[in-house]
Amino acid sequence: MTDWTEGAAWVGGEIVPLVDAKIHVTDWGLTRSDITYDVAPVREGGFFRLDDYLDRFEASMAALRLDPGVTRAEMKSALHAIVARSGLRESYVSMTCARGRPLVAGSRDPRDCANHFYAWAVPFIHVVKPEVIARGARLWVAKNVRRIPEDSVNPRAKNYHWGDFTAGIFEANDAGYDNVVLLDHAGNVTEGPGFNVFAVKNGRVITSDHGVLHGITRRTVLEMCAEVGLNVETRPLPVDELLEADEVFLSSTGGGVMPVVEVAGRIFGNGAHGPEASRLAALYREWIRRPEWREEVAYAA
Amino acid sequence: MTDWTEGAAWVGGEIVPLVDAKIHVTDWGLTRSDITYDVAPVREGGFFRLDDYLDRFEASMAALRLDPGVTRAEMKSALHAIVARSGLRESYVSMTCARGRPLVAGSRDPRDCANHFYAWAVPFIHVVKPEVIARGARLWVAKNVRRIPEDSVNPRAKNYHWGDFTAGIFEANDAGYDNVVLLDHAGNVTEGPGFNVFAVKNGRVITSDHGVLHGITRRTVLEMCAEVGLNVETRPLPVDELLEADEVFLSSTGGGVMPVVEVAGRIFGNGAHGPEASRLAALYREWIRRPEWREEVAYAA
Repeated sequence: MTDWTEGAAWVGGEIVPLVDAKIHVTDWGLTRSDITYDVAPVREGGFFRLDDYLDRFEASMAALRLDPGVTRAEMKSALHAIVARSGLRESYVSMTCARGRPLVAGSRDPRDCANHFYAWAVPFIHVVKPEVIARGARLWVAKNVRRIPEDSVNPRAKNYHWGDFTAGIFEANDAGYDNVVLLDHAGNVTEGPGFNVFAVKNGRVITSDHGVLHGITRRTVLEMCAEVGLNVETRPLPVDELLEADEVFLSSTGGGVMPVVEVAGRIFGNGAHGPEASRLAALYREWIRRPEWREEVAYAA
Repeated sequence: MTDWTEGAAWVGGEIVPLVDAKIHVTDWGLTRSDITYDVAPVREGGFFRLDDYLDRFEASMAALRLDPGVTRAEMKSALHAIVARSGLRESYVSMTCARGRPLVAGSRDPRDCANHFYAWAVPFIHVVKPEVIARGARLWVAKNVRRIPEDSVNPRAKNYHWGDFTAGIFEANDAGYDNVVLLDHAGNVTEGPGFNVFAVKNGRVITSDHGVLHGITRRTVLEMCAEVGLNVETRPLPVDELLEADEVFLSSTGGGVMPVVEVAGRIFGNGAHGPEASRLAALYREWIRRPEWREEVAYAA
């Protein structure tokens, strides 16, 4: 019996159970983290904003000079096929392009490698668990590690360079917190592992404009703010301003809009979710049903 | 027929042909580059300084809170076994410890993962090809990318965060150069993809003391300098000082001591290998034969 319970993957033109989806140990996607990816959500049986995720994925590949070797239509078809095969109506769907291995033995030149595309769909992953959001998520500000600067690794080409995040997660866990946000070398808020960060102050919504991934969910938040008439400022966000906010929330493909109740000892709204964050979180749950942004998955009957 | 021509690997307690050595696409060693490794050389049928490489590998794992799940003796035995099986008398032997996959479905916490060790041995890899060294290697200084700073990712825990190097390699290739060295954010020389960098000026040997891997071959160079009476300075090395050096050379497990003849348009010694670099390169070829640092591999007869 083939085991599809963990999900399904598309590798080299074949659809395989997740458990069989592997990459070679000498692939430069691993040994140089020379790889890019994107993650699109399937919610209630359909992709949300898939074309926007594919646009960003193609921009990331172009920035890193990676060629997936398949067309956009073929990628889209592969993503639909693995979700349909998995049967998952709530799914975290990852698409990846790796540098591959050199076709010239012993080469150290990335131009000599056979790039390749693969994808996998697994049960939906929440970057912060819903029960943690419900009881009040507590965010740590890393002290011992700074976000990799954008002139070292471009954060807008979505990448697996998570060493700074991993160090920050350990620091947060050691301090008894649920998750972490990293500062840049000037002391401004950047992002956390898999999410963007927002402050709300006097009815204005503020989020960093640099050193961060331009998240699709971040973009949805900015568009929702425009629709409901909330003023937005995308600019450097000093950590002190975050700590003095009225509300703080996170955005991620892995969970939508997520209010937090504490940042590094500073408690917002007496520990309750803020009104603007709650409103945006509810609105996000509406928006993912909007037909103009959805592509329904054709599951087997 | 099993194909061992590419090399041999140790994965999950089994010795397999390199071509079959794979890691799961959802392993955090890949998706978060949450992984460490080391590479020991086999030269003329024996490991050189294997215990030093294992010491560093264990220090890297400790720094990243990774547990290989095997003892040092078991790792050493695995490394010997794959080289013996491969039959390679000149081999690049990589040992790796990856975070693994979470044992708790949907967890985002590295403490929930099953870490694992694996290793592979392939034909010796030169970070700069011997024929390029022979005709005069030309090194570029990256302009558009800076080395990831040490307060973002610790360079002494050997890691696969090579996005900055990859961007630098493309920049060097575009400019017609053989390889690249990256500067830190203060304009000091750090390292290149897989090698340390040395300047020789007025009989003194200078190499960076921060923001770099403490290479085992770098250490061998410092020890050889002591033996031959060359003064060494380990300190920040401004790029202008590199460009005004009498000689420049590189050190790497993948090649020993490698003279270069040009850095970003500045030609040293009229394009000939410098005398100190040549002396150290020859001495390195002697040192790798020193019995006190060797472990001979027991190949099948």
